[in-house]
Amino acid sequence: LSEPGPRAGSAIGPVYFLSDYGRADEFVGVVHAVLARRAPGIVVIDLTHDVAPFDVAGGARTLERAVRHLGPGVVLAVVDPGVGGRRRALVATATGPGPGYFVGPDNGLLPPALDALGGPSATFALAKTEDGPATFDGRDVFAPAVAALCSGARPEALGGAVDPTSLVRLPAPRLERTDLGEGHGRLRVEVTWIDRFGNVQLAARDDGPGLGRSASVGVPRARGSVTAPHRLRVVRTFSDLHQGELGMLLDANDRLALVVGEGSAADRLGVGVGDLVELVW
Amino acid sequence: LSEPGPRAGSAIGPVYFLSDYGRADEFVGVVHAVLARRAPGIVVIDLTHDVAPFDVAGGARTLERAVRHLGPGVVLAVVDPGVGGRRRALVATATGPGPGYFVGPDNGLLPPALDALGGPSATFALAKTEDGPATFDGRDVFAPAVAALCSGARPEALGGAVDPTSLVRLPAPRLERTDLGEGHGRLRVEVTWIDRFGNVQLAARDDGPGLGRSASVGVPRARGSVTAPHRLRVVRTFSDLHQGELGMLLDANDRLALVVGEGSAADRLGVGVGDLVELVW
Amino acid sequence: LSEPGPRAGSAIGPVYFLSDYGRADEFVGVVHAVLARRAPGIVVIDLTHDVAPFDVAGGARTLERAVRHLGPGVVLAVVDPGVGGRRRALVATATGPGPGYFVGPDNGLLPPALDALGGPSATFALAKTEDGPATFDGRDVFAPAVAALCSGARPEALGGAVDPTSLVRLPAPRLERTDLGEGHGRLRVEVTWIDRFGNVQLAARDDGPGLGRSASVGVPRARGSVTAPHRLRVVRTFSDLHQGELGMLLDANDRLALVVGEGSAADRLGVGVGDLVELVW
Repeated sequence: LSEPGPRAGSAIGPVYFLSDYGRADEFVGVVHAVLARRAPGIVVIDLTHDVAPFDVAGGARTLERAVRHLGPGVVLAVVDPGVGGRRRALVATATGPGPGYFVGPDNGLLPPALDALGGPSATFALAKTEDGPATFDGRDVFAPAVAALCSGARPEALGGAVDPTSLVRLPAPRLERTDLGEGHGRLRVEVTWIDRFGNVQLAARDDGPGLGRSASVGVPRARGSVTAPHRLRVVRTFSDLHQGELGMLLDANDRLALVVGEGSAADRLGVGVGDLVELVW
Repeated sequence: LSEPGPRAGSAIGPVYFLSDYGRADEFVGVVHAVLARRAPGIVVIDLTHDVAPFDVAGGARTLERAVRHLGPGVVLAVVDPGVGGRRRALVATATGPGPGYFVGPDNGLLPPALDALGGPSATFALAKTEDGPATFDGRDVFAPAVAALCSGARPEALGGAVDPTSLVRLPAPRLERTDLGEGHGRLRVEVTWIDRFGNVQLAARDDGPGLGRSASVGVPRARGSVTAPHRLRVVRTFSDLHQGELGMLLDANDRLALVVGEGSAADRLGVGVGDLVELVW
Repeated sequence: LSEPGPRAGSAIGPVYFLSDYGRADEFVGVVHAVLARRAPGIVVIDLTHDVAPFDVAGGARTLERAVRHLGPGVVLAVVDPGVGGRRRALVATATGPGPGYFVGPDNGLLPPALDALGGPSATFALAKTEDGPATFDGRDVFAPAVAALCSGARPEALGGAVDPTSLVRLPAPRLERTDLGEGHGRLRVEVTWIDRFGNVQLAARDDGPGLGRSASVGVPRARGSVTAPHRLRVVRTFSDLHQGELGMLLDANDRLALVVGEGSAADRLGVGVGDLVELVW
């Protein structure tokens, strides 16, 4: 770690900032300003601030997807419905080539990203102060901790060590695979992400039926029925599909995704995050 | 002030940029580019660009809330329905630990933030040129002035001094407090901000009935009636509320705010910015 | 060009980044992170990421409008429905005082901006790799190329030269002007942009009837009819109009634009991008 200094912010790498603050209000700008004031020269990269309000699971998945592509630096992640309450405020350290520190609430937001880097090597709970506002910890608690780390502070100087296995964790998304023999199979799996283009990411890391094969996809409804299934082709990339054609591919995060050529698979299938889909091939 | 130089932009501190330009068009990016071209090394922090189009009062309140948290630097604020017309283009200087300069139109946008820092110490009207486009002063007038200040120019080199008391000011939000005796009271007060989470900020700086007390809140309608009031509790922070419970707290800007546990108080009460609410306790 | 080095990113100028990625997902942040990891010290200016999904023409026009205001640096533009397919990935070089390099897909996105700077001086097709993901070239192909250029790589080191005249080009917007004699005229012209404020930019660079004149504007419908025309005044700037008055002006990009005083001309006229309007004076 670099020693504290007027421009030490640059030495440790950028701050990678994710939240559900949106950009319509000044929340994000104020956190940037606090970081710049406390650690001049700091570079802040906004991952996104459009996590749905209070959607800890959505934020956790976004951070998990992004983290493999981040270099050295500090992750600042705030989706925090329990702000001001008893949930702990964490600094977690990670080894490996990515960010060295993760700062955020202990509500399940950080562990998936930490696990993607091999798990936290240590975790600390930020010391609490009882005075002052208790509704904007991104500004008042987390940003100062990030600025301190960027200025060379050791995490143990910011709070007491806590057991990494004590971190709050969210349930894993549902995934049920059935081998039907002779190259056939069925996958019931949860939708984990709908992106801007309407691509439907699934909680599955393999390629299901395999490249070039066909499959059908339906949406399980109440009492075991499945909506009229759609045919799809497993392809390598978007341009392998005709405009409007439904397909499936391994996406840029190595997850199975339902896609439509220059269109929205989410609209086509009528699914959202948390829904189950059933693939049969 | 630093002398002009290729990286003098950093010496004076960041530019804090607020506007109603939105992010869907290239307006904000072009202003960033103009700043970078004229003052290489300049750091720009976007406070927000989602002030509602032409909403000078909303922009002024946003800047007022943010300004206490900004360090040294230059505020660039543009919500400017009168662009190209007779309204003056201002540089105001402030003393104190925050931004040293405020640049923007003379239409009420800057004074609340300046007042929060003790008022302007001097104000200057940017010299006008009659040629060239007259529809994008953020790019053509304000950004060049900001870049000049960041490069070491004195504000008096950019325009003539004007009387700080001559600045256009917006009316203060409505606030009427009635002491009903024996610890009871009534507050009729204007809604000044609905944030992303649906929190309803009021134009009142104290805690009304006081922490731990109950109150009722209604919305005055025509002819003096008030909608069926809602009960609420005065709490310290969001996590003191059950999910869905209506409460009131002193928010991160030390203003009274109506909030709902993990929900939207604006939706619950059906109020928007500019509406009055009536608190009784 | 600067030699590669740990902070060479700053030497060549900022990266100007435009895409249809939106900001709700982490796409933009991840590209920033890849740039920062590969070229520490790089400065990235976001022009906009809200180009409509797959809208190459809209992205091309946005970049064309912005490019005159950019200083030295590298343009990174990604609106790329053909990602992973056979469309080429380009580096184009430009002379003149603006950005020296343009990086993006060969689908019509870059040429209008290049032409605004006098046309590309050379173009190169990025070398392809067949392994790895094929769905996020912004992260995996374009950003690494930009980082290499910012670190001092020559474009010919990144791919083979291609004929600049072979670049894919989009059709020009429609424009039909009729001189009606004695100072009268008619202009049928395509709407090329609706901005946040509802201003309606037209594909015409002159001032039509001329400053201070009146005209009427209608929207051609099927079978040659034109909707009931609106009267308008040709003005210099927005503040020359009364609130709610329809006008026309030469906008900040030197294009004819229909505008309403503190209102939306697009709403008033019921037009969108790609529609024709008919001006008569």
